[in-house]
Amino acid sequence: MVRVDCGIGMRWLATLVSLLSAAAWSGEPPKRSEAVASISSPGSVLKLELGLDEERLSWSLSRFGAPIVRASRLGFLLRDTEKLERNMKLESQASREVNARWEQAWGESRWVENHYRELTVTVREQQRAKRAFSVRFRVYDDGIGFRYEFPDQAGLKDVIIQDELTEFDLVPTGTAWWIPAGEWNRYEYLYNRTPIAEIGQAHTPMTIRTDDGLHLAFHEAALVDYAGMWLRRVEGQRFRAQLSPASEGWKVRRSAPFTTPWRTLRIADSAAALYESNLELNLNEPNKLGDVSWFKPSKYVGVWWELHLELTSWARGAKHGATTANVKRYIDFAAKHGFRGVLVEGWNTGWDGQWFGDGNDFNFTQPSEDFDLSAVAAYAKKRGVHLVGHHETGGAVSHYESQLGAALDLYAALGIDQIKTGYVADAGQIERNDGDGIVRREWHDGQWQSRHHLRVVTEAAKRKIAINPHEPIKDTGLRRTYPNWVAREGARGMEYNAWGNPPNPPEHEANLVFTRMLSGPMDFTPGIVSLQGRKQKLQSTLAKQLANYVVIYSPIQMVADLPENYERRLDAFQFIKDVPVDWEQTRVLNGAIGDYVTIARKDRASEVWVLGAVTDEFGRVLDVPLSFLDPKRRYRAEIYRDGDQAHYLNAPDDFVLESREVSSADRLSLRLAAGGGQAIRFVPVSAR
Amino acid sequence: MVRVDCGIGMRWLATLVSLLSAAAWSGEPPKRSEAVASISSPGSVLKLELGLDEERLSWSLSRFGAPIVRASRLGFLLRDTEKLERNMKLESQASREVNARWEQAWGESRWVENHYRELTVTVREQQRAKRAFSVRFRVYDDGIGFRYEFPDQAGLKDVIIQDELTEFDLVPTGTAWWIPAGEWNRYEYLYNRTPIAEIGQAHTPMTIRTDDGLHLAFHEAALVDYAGMWLRRVEGQRFRAQLSPASEGWKVRRSAPFTTPWRTLRIADSAAALYESNLELNLNEPNKLGDVSWFKPSKYVGVWWELHLELTSWARGAKHGATTANVKRYIDFAAKHGFRGVLVEGWNTGWDGQWFGDGNDFNFTQPSEDFDLSAVAAYAKKRGVHLVGHHETGGAVSHYESQLGAALDLYAALGIDQIKTGYVADAGQIERNDGDGIVRREWHDGQWQSRHHLRVVTEAAKRKIAINPHEPIKDTGLRRTYPNWVAREGARGMEYNAWGNPPNPPEHEANLVFTRMLSGPMDFTPGIVSLQGRKQKLQSTLAKQLANYVVIYSPIQMVADLPENYERRLDAFQFIKDVPVDWEQTRVLNGAIGDYVTIARKDRASEVWVLGAVTDEFGRVLDVPLSFLDPKRRYRAEIYRDGDQAHYLNAPDDFVLESREVSSADRLSLRLAAGGGQAIRFVPVSAR
Repeated sequence: MVRVDCGIGMRWLATLVSLLSAAAWSGEPPKRSEAVASISSPGSVLKLELGLDEERLSWSLSRFGAPIVRASRLGFLLRDTEKLERNMKLESQASREVNARWEQAWGESRWVENHYRELTVTVREQQRAKRAFSVRFRVYDDGIGFRYEFPDQAGLKDVIIQDELTEFDLVPTGTAWWIPAGEWNRYEYLYNRTPIAEIGQAHTPMTIRTDDGLHLAFHEAALVDYAGMWLRRVEGQRFRAQLSPASEGWKVRRSAPFTTPWRTLRIADSAAALYESNLELNLNEPNKLGDVSWFKPSKYVGVWWELHLELTSWARGAKHGATTANVKRYIDFAAKHGFRGVLVEGWNTGWDGQWFGDGNDFNFTQPSEDFDLSAVAAYAKKRGVHLVGHHETGGAVSHYESQLGAALDLYAALGIDQIKTGYVADAGQIERNDGDGIVRREWHDGQWQSRHHLRVVTEAAKRKIAINPHEPIKDTGLRRTYPNWVAREGARGMEYNAWGNPPNPPEHEANLVFTRMLSGPMDFTPGIVSLQGRKQKLQSTLAKQLANYVVIYSPIQMVADLPENYERRLDAFQFIKDVPVDWEQTRVLNGAIGDYVTIARKDRASEVWVLGAVTDEFGRVLDVPLSFLDPKRRYRAEIYRDGDQAHYLNAPDDFVLESREVSSADRLSLRLAAGGGQAIRFVPVSAR
Repeated sequence: MVRVDCGIGMRWLATLVSLLSAAAWSGEPPKRSEAVASISSPGSVLKLELGLDEERLSWSLSRFGAPIVRASRLGFLLRDTEKLERNMKLESQASREVNARWEQAWGESRWVENHYRELTVTVREQQRAKRAFSVRFRVYDDGIGFRYEFPDQAGLKDVIIQDELTEFDLVPTGTAWWIPAGEWNRYEYLYNRTPIAEIGQAHTPMTIRTDDGLHLAFHEAALVDYAGMWLRRVEGQRFRAQLSPASEGWKVRRSAPFTTPWRTLRIADSAAALYESNLELNLNEPNKLGDVSWFKPSKYVGVWWELHLELTSWARGAKHGATTANVKRYIDFAAKHGFRGVLVEGWNTGWDGQWFGDGNDFNFTQPSEDFDLSAVAAYAKKRGVHLVGHHETGGAVSHYESQLGAALDLYAALGIDQIKTGYVADAGQIERNDGDGIVRREWHDGQWQSRHHLRVVTEAAKRKIAINPHEPIKDTGLRRTYPNWVAREGARGMEYNAWGNPPNPPEHEANLVFTRMLSGPMDFTPGIVSLQGRKQKLQSTLAKQLANYVVIYSPIQMVADLPENYERRLDAFQFIKDVPVDWEQTRVLNGAIGDYVTIARKDRASEVWVLGAVTDEFGRVLDVPLSFLDPKRRYRAEIYRDGDQAHYLNAPDDFVLESREVSSADRLSLRLAAGGGQAIRFVPVSAR
């Protein structure tokens, strides 16, 4: 059961709605950068100030008195009407403080602290239509979020946003880790590492380490019925919210009243603290689904890696992977080793021709003739295993929506409670068909697709089915509100190690943790213990493949290699069998963006802790205190580490499994080979 | 008692002395970069390789297979004879492994682990004098050291080193923190932070963070009867050992057999681990003084800050500070608050004229007429306090040496067991008078001065007196061998906050910890709770002044502010009274060079722990697990922190003292204001 602890409660420190004296706002033109309102975070770490420069609302942010964001624009360019930015007067401001905590249905940690101060300002035009909008700021010690709120008003009903004018004019110089936005490949890029001033247009989360050692991440929260935000560098270190386009030419169309997503900025002194922040989750609405205990965090195997190795095919014929016999083989393997799920890709019809970006042949209720869905589902049930459904759309989303109800009903009838969806199409090439004879092309992260994803998730929730989209819209913390939206892809996953040119480099995971993973769970599909792609080797040691189960969070984790490869590496496989997937607590013990990271997580269902550490192409020696362990117990540490000669290029298989007894007062020196990692499972061997 | 634990013992893994087959070394000219010998660190982290390129010996270093130092020169330019570098042939090589630990008389930690593999090679010229030299390499997991060894040989008796040719050709690019060498002001510079390739000539320790997150520090160990090493950038990232000059024009003159100091390079993945390395201490010889329990790590007050504020003067007259009455006032203050020592600067004659760089008027046995040394010493004894002696030389070192025995005898007779010495003169302007009518000028870190310091230290040791030189030669770990060499200055200390232009900036301590402090204890003279210099404010909050007692290590710590200032800040003063000065253990909990650092240390005499955290001009929020505490106890945390409005520029006095009960399982979020800090004392409140 999910419980909101109101013991700490919502504490309304001050709710003041004050109409400012007209005298201050008439007569002489306002001076530049005049602060009209301000609010500090609960611990006086961050201070947000609002200004009215030449009657345009702006915001700025400082930390311990040092400027972080200098006065930056707020407003909109609207279609068929005037820009909503100028001639503004502050109509009201209100503030409050909230200190609460809430329980996650599943996640990196069970409890989430939510302590912020909020400032809401409303500005209104002084002339013509006298249109108004509000901005609600929430200021935490570790970041801020703000959103626009469009009230119900006569002067602005149908809002067509041509461009959002929100800006972020960053003061400190530094290094950014980012992927390009507005290009063909959605989110599946290697991370760029450049000076901030060399960014072009980036997706969020975009992560920065300033020259003074501060860590920042720009993102957004609660992207609902709106276009995803890209960050376009206008000049210097000034960025503007660039909304993902709609096929109509505008970016967003809504009817007032409505609110935008939250624009967010995490700020922390260490990479570890940046990861540990729950800013975006906190800015999302609470769970709207009620009891979701029917979703079971779990691991799954299935017909997937063999497809990427081209050992079998999605298409029917001699090489078809999703045959009754082959899937039964996976079911047997899952049953033998205790994995809950078996994914079946290529089970339905529509895969035989070109489907990348053209998925109109897919039939989501018609299994291929060599795959007896009912029989296989019955066999799985008999063996205590659950099929994982698969809905690849090839980007033909309207086509998929036309079958969505029947497709979900079919799976629900068979007891299938988890579906991997797919949107394989170039960015901007999602096919939309409104039935008016016009085929429109939408972006993966535009307003239209944001609505689609939520439609699938809510329809699935009615049937107690969890959703895991690949080639998705980015995660903005909506799993809090819709906890059946359990994971996404949205970055280069393991398949790039099968055929990517180049494959994922050793720094990839240490990049992901501090960029993509700030947004939410990723279905990375780890665990290739064979270290062998299609015609290329993985850029990883064996131990690192295990550590990825801890480092790359998801409540569903694929056990992605071929069954026969696991049978050959039962030593390493044991960790994959044992590693939990749902967590009571998470601690980032150390980390440097793109270099290395060590994360410890406590199982939610037991007293077991696990630790994962990964590095880039450089070996590391990381000193780790085991203070996260219960000080009243002793533990057996099952250590899966790189051998002394291990190196991702020439000795990736050099691997040592050892065991020792430890307590919370001990420290471990983790030796990670170049391209390596380490995974440790801590099992209590004494009662408290 | 000091004990060397041989339980782990010296383990000779392999001692092989092999004459390499002549075949490999005749005939065709050797190829470039041919490895002739190699050794890895005990944990296979570092690998050192030796090459013979065109018959010149070179060394290179890699870490986890990644190059750190590419093939770099070894050799000497000698005066009046040929360069000792060319036409070399490998004569022998030997290796061994040592794994031991030893106990410090006093220090940052009681026990020091010493685990290394050693490779010694001997090369010999093939022509002419057939001169030979050896190089001994010790390879640790966290760094390396190597020294030259000149054997007793017919071809090379009197060795006049014109230049050492040792090079360090660094591979990874990065940022360096360094102070210039060979300029006028000894070591008292603000730290430069530049790309490695923009260094000119730097003192050691020189600290580097590579772009890949590796932390390096170049230094030397056991600088005995030799010139100090500067690092001169030859080109790109290639550095050469530039020896501090001797007045004769050469750098070093020695008779074979002899060994050079160790050239050292610490390598770690974090700034914290870089600090925690004991590389240079391990490379020094064990304690030669036997029982030094007569040295008492302790705090002291005295006539010092008032001199730098120009409230009083060193010179006699109306403003003279070191009067009988004034010193008795300090004695009373020390007795009242439990400080052991009272320093008296300006107690003797010779201060009345110009003494900076001209100390020939100093008389080291003649108190000024308004200072009754015997009576004051007796008064101190009666009150249970110990005077701290003072020997300022004004750089007239031969003059000082002529009185050294009598000066030490006088102090010894009065029970004075600790002396602060001083060498106030421009760099290169130490006055040497060999009695031959020629006044020579030597460098503070030249061979001649290296001998002088050791003469003072050993003469003092005979009288059970501890030495603390200001304007010293740099520390190279000799406190292990001579544990009465208890501290030094050798960087910008607190006095720059009285009159420095500019004063020490907020980043100064966070620079010092990862640069100067890698070399050994510093008599920083902290604790200015008034935050007030001569005509300028300190660039620090009050809480930071307390944290410096933990962060800047010394076994002797001055309580440097005026007594009346402490009486006005009894709240903050309590921490200064309580903080220990000798440690059982030290843990660096976090840190970034020049940005911030948090250090926890356990008292050697009790179960008390203290923690100090300091930041630069940026405020920080540092999450700290208290895992260093004994898990079987509970503690009262006495927290001395920055107030919520604290800022070093406009609210440095905003300060909060609070207390809470904690255990090792707790975590604290340390909020440091801009230019701020935090000090915590953890007192056990429960038995184990």
